Amino acid sequence: MAKKSPDEVHPVKAFGWAASDPSGHLSPFSFSRRATGEEDVRFKVLYCGICHSDLHCIKNEWGFSTYPLLPGHEIAGEVTEVGSKVTKVKPGDKVGVGCLVGACHSCDNCTADLENHCPQVIQTYNSIDVDGTMTYGGYSDHMVARERYIVRFPENMPLDAGAPLLCAGITVYSPMKYYGLSEPGMHIAVVGLGGLGHVAVKFAKAFGARVTVVSTSPKKEEEALKRLGADSFLVSTNMDQLKKEQFTLDGIIDTVSAVHPLLPLLGLLKANGKLILVGAPEKPLELPAFSVIMGRKTVAGSNIGGMKETQEMIDFAAKHNITADIEIIKADYLNTAMERLAKGDVRYRFVIDIANSVADIYRETTQRK
Amino acid sequence: MAKKSPDEVHPVKAFGWAASDPSGHLSPFSFSRRATGEEDVRFKVLYCGICHSDLHCIKNEWGFSTYPLLPGHEIAGEVTEVGSKVTKVKPGDKVGVGCLVGACHSCDNCTADLENHCPQVIQTYNSIDVDGTMTYGGYSDHMVARERYIVRFPENMPLDAGAPLLCAGITVYSPMKYYGLSEPGMHIAVVGLGGLGHVAVKFAKAFGARVTVVSTSPKKEEEALKRLGADSFLVSTNMDQLKKEQFTLDGIIDTVSAVHPLLPLLGLLKANGKLILVGAPEKPLELPAFSVIMGRKTVAGSNIGGMKETQEMIDFAAKHNITADIEIIKADYLNTAMERLAKGDVRYRFVIDIANSVADIYRETTQRK
Repeated sequence: MAKKSPDEVHPVKAFGWAASDPSGHLSPFSFSRRATGEEDVRFKVLYCGICHSDLHCIKNEWGFSTYPLLPGHEIAGEVTEVGSKVTKVKPGDKVGVGCLVGACHSCDNCTADLENHCPQVIQTYNSIDVDGTMTYGGYSDHMVARERYIVRFPENMPLDAGAPLLCAGITVYSPMKYYGLSEPGMHIAVVGLGGLGHVAVKFAKAFGARVTVVSTSPKKEEEALKRLGADSFLVSTNMDQLKKEQFTLDGIIDTVSAVHPLLPLLGLLKANGKLILVGAPEKPLELPAFSVIMGRKTVAGSNIGGMKETQEMIDFAAKHNITADIEIIKADYLNTAMERLAKGDVRYRFVIDIANSVADIYRETTQRK
Repeated sequence: MAKKSPDEVHPVKAFGWAASDPSGHLSPFSFSRRATGEEDVRFKVLYCGICHSDLHCIKNEWGFSTYPLLPGHEIAGEVTEVGSKVTKVKPGDKVGVGCLVGACHSCDNCTADLENHCPQVIQTYNSIDVDGTMTYGGYSDHMVARERYIVRFPENMPLDAGAPLLCAGITVYSPMKYYGLSEPGMHIAVVGLGGLGHVAVKFAKAFGARVTVVSTSPKKEEEALKRLGADSFLVSTNMDQLKKEQFTLDGIIDTVSAVHPLLPLLGLLKANGKLILVGAPEKPLELPAFSVIMGRKTVAGSNIGGMKETQEMIDFAAKHNITADIEIIKADYLNTAMERLAKGDVRYRFVIDIANSVADIYRETTQRK
């Protein structure tokens, strides 16, 4: 597909922070976005969460990054303009955009509201948009996206602590719903207590599950039990602890993105239990066939969710007062934040205060326009 | 648990072929079975299929064999005596016993008709029965089993070609039902065309699926398409063929019991597609997390089925004229058959003609009693 410079085809000046090479260093970046089409919603970005995927992408760790790369897919802000056919929102509304901004809208997956599985899905950044330009994400002063990809923020959902739900939230919510783990009374384990894991605990509790946190770090026990409200805690390397809990779980949400053994986790599952991978280690995991054959167990994956379910997720979160635990940063702290994220030094999500850092410069930019 | 000699506690002389050590050599073996209890069904064994598990067990390849080991869990015959509380069958009826002869009957799994997942399940051979004796399988002149574990053979189901369905049949039928692959119009692949695979093709066709056979051996194409009625054939090592068919399958029944790559198979699945392992390689398989996360795919296992479903399976098979393709042997050919089975040299299931080999000796034995 032809790749065009956004400046050639887009009239609206924009500003953000982008990486220009696999060093991953982020620096100020001027670009442009398209005019508001008839199905488009334009909004001022107020907050953008930093997902671990952003870190992988700016460093090209998955091997498909195109530079300049402007990350960010946990984007929340306020509508400034809508196209003539837009009915879902109006200027002034609080909205968000998650990982997706386009798909074919005609395949079986799109028809089933699973745009996330469309073979022609367009990611919010590092994808080629329908007009041939690269998509740029939410580390920027404003966004424009088709109405279908706009998520309405409920009245009581804060934009800063709600933004991460657009990726981290739907990533854990969707598999619990799809794999039947959202029914009350389930016993669910969440493996790994990071950006995804801490939100998974909150959703699982809201669904009425008994929740066990499994972590490599015994230090996280108090945090898991006292602050996040988990019901029990297991250290993943403590075989005695694991043995006591074997055959007790209905499901596991495994958020760990490093290679780790599945066998001890599968041993915790009851017959028909489901281990759902939402973290993506770079190297293959070892799967002993016996461990799924005996007890008819499942190892499955899940990748965010469709737009309809993303709206459902944020409405559910608002109703149950679920938000991410965040640390708010300014744009000039981005590179330090990425270093800390690489070390797991954040509880639990960095969120960029766009309005008071990136957007200051946006105002200057638009004045110059 | 105490292991007693069956002869100490069982009054009924029996005769079969058993292995006495991990050489796996089978030879004539005199033993005894219990008297017919009030819930018991006693039957004359007429045919017994040879499952690949039998080979693993006589050679102690899974490490939990107890000798003497008398294998056989695809057993069909004719009822000779029933206990006072038995209502399901009467003398003269055609019946079978599969892999199971007991369970706790009170746990969640048993209550859900999934005796196969009961933690106290009693296998048809190489298990300890409720009376403390070892269970002995179907390579023998007669069997006695609780009514719950007796499968009624429909009128038109042959005992010889039907016997293997009690293991091979339920092993592939159950996951197709449970994982939603039995709805008409599905596109299913069967990987591996052996004892399990050839029956899987027949069930999938009967369910109304489009069936693709995947095999390492190009030589099996004609067999798969012309004789078994598969719709297409792929050589598992031919990446060009696999690529053309990517994202086309709803599900895969993987019967291969050697270590093999899952990635090419997962690539064949549509979004939400399911790869079901029913063969059990001794070493772990490699599972790249991305391959299940993208497209929300499942790798799961399945292990035979409960008794209710086993009856349902054989009734369905009878209705659709599904039987195993068999080669009938006499008992004195058993050790040769095992050698051929180890090399995959059978199309597709050996079945022992018990009545005309083992049972000849049974008659002598009972006359001496």
